Amino acid sequence: MTTQQLIEQIQIKKSFLCIGLDVDLNKIPSHFLALEDPIFEFNKAIIDATHDLAVAYKPNTAFFEAYGIKGWMSLQKTISYINEKYPEIFTIADAKRGDIGNTSSMYAKAFFEDLNFDSITVAPYMGKDSVEPFLAFEDKHTIMLALTSNEGAFDFQTLQVNGTKGEAKELYKTVLETSKTWKNSENLMYVVGATKAEYFTEIRKIVPDSFLLVPGVGAQGGSLSEVCKYGMNANVGLLINSSRGIIYASKEADFAQKARIEALKMQQEMAAIMQAE
Amino acid sequence: MTTQQLIEQIQIKKSFLCIGLDVDLNKIPSHFLALEDPIFEFNKAIIDATHDLAVAYKPNTAFFEAYGIKGWMSLQKTISYINEKYPEIFTIADAKRGDIGNTSSMYAKAFFEDLNFDSITVAPYMGKDSVEPFLAFEDKHTIMLALTSNEGAFDFQTLQVNGTKGEAKELYKTVLETSKTWKNSENLMYVVGATKAEYFTEIRKIVPDSFLLVPGVGAQGGSLSEVCKYGMNANVGLLINSSRGIIYASKEADFAQKARIEALKMQQEMAAIMQAE
Repeated sequence: MTTQQLIEQIQIKKSFLCIGLDVDLNKIPSHFLALEDPIFEFNKAIIDATHDLAVAYKPNTAFFEAYGIKGWMSLQKTISYINEKYPEIFTIADAKRGDIGNTSSMYAKAFFEDLNFDSITVAPYMGKDSVEPFLAFEDKHTIMLALTSNEGAFDFQTLQVNGTKGEAKELYKTVLETSKTWKNSENLMYVVGATKAEYFTEIRKIVPDSFLLVPGVGAQGGSLSEVCKYGMNANVGLLINSSRGIIYASKEADFAQKARIEALKMQQEMAAIMQAE
Repeated sequence: MTTQQLIEQIQIKKSFLCIGLDVDLNKIPSHFLALEDPIFEFNKAIIDATHDLAVAYKPNTAFFEAYGIKGWMSLQKTISYINEKYPEIFTIADAKRGDIGNTSSMYAKAFFEDLNFDSITVAPYMGKDSVEPFLAFEDKHTIMLALTSNEGAFDFQTLQVNGTKGEAKELYKTVLETSKTWKNSENLMYVVGATKAEYFTEIRKIVPDSFLLVPGVGAQGGSLSEVCKYGMNANVGLLINSSRGIIYASKEADFAQKARIEALKMQQEMAAIMQAE
């Protein structure tokens, strides 16, 4: 999917909601456990109930890998289902990959070609040649960690780093700036946690046009209106993720309706913000 | 496996060789392609030919994921084969994982419980709460990226970072120092690339007792003797990885014998270094 197509979907749906598919078998309605592929069936129910309210789905690979081969099959079925039934949806493999060049190429092949995701999340620690293999894929998007929503973000990401000209700035800003010099950097998006809304102003100075994938609204305590106030650009430029707040809204038979209600609340809030801009 | 058991194996085998299993179907002898599971069969042949010369095997998850469900099955068969036939071998899932706490817990479950690896490589960018879930597993080891062997290592890892006391030091040193304060940090090992042998002296000042997993000898140009000179400690404390130099020593029918010859060369060099210490 092109960035332009994603922007169009945001305008059509008046939504920039991404729903995270982090399926824990201990947290889904128990009747699913009797089915052959509970993870896929649960995802399918959530997707069918919310696809008109969300512009993106983000399966978290850890929650599939934890169930071994069966989990990987569930991942494959989930992405195939979205691609076939809802091709207008932007898909994100939340995988946090990154390794030396030939290994990153294999990860890119796995997620962009074999599974056919539109995008993947990657970690920046190994630098340029660990990310550029992902950027080489046309109409695919690489969503690099910049400033994450967890407490550990303050261990390294916000440390002051000395630049070549003697000035000091936070590591995540250096990561953002440096990444703009990489080949095909127009295929980059960034992860920026909602729990740090006050940072968005500074981030927008460095990457005014890029899409930002924003976890941490809801369960992790971030505020949608705060993030939009400081992070939105002319094309919206945000994908706000919610996982647990939507998919685990109920553990009863009405889980899909409850998920839809939670997604609808967010979509309506987003529509109001978009209209006010 | 405990660290003590790993040290004993190093003494018994007079080897600290780790063989990386990065299987690319384009690079293995063509007769494998007719088999039902070429990746596993190739790995099995390599392992059977080299298990007495190596103390560790390191499957690189990217090279399995690139082949989808079949690849994940090959990974499961490979680790099961090692665990059953050669339980004295230390196994490393080269996966470079790392995410927020509940997600890292799922990755730990996938690799430590479901697949039963002894260790996994992780990325540090997301900090303490992204790594501690791995450290919580007894007799399992978490091998964190410190200073990698690729060119991109110089993008961020070697940047000067300001400490709380005003002193500046490279990011990878800060990563090493900070990680020592984490819960169960005795379960940490570190990735340090062989292409940067002169850095080992400084690294050993920070983590004198930890095992270091060292990629980059051979194909990437690092020198074994240089790394040992600066990086060895009283328990050896090194796992030197070679992937392509061993497993792709030949593409002909003699590939396993040629792999053994290359592994033997390295083991003999290691035995000589251990004796000279």
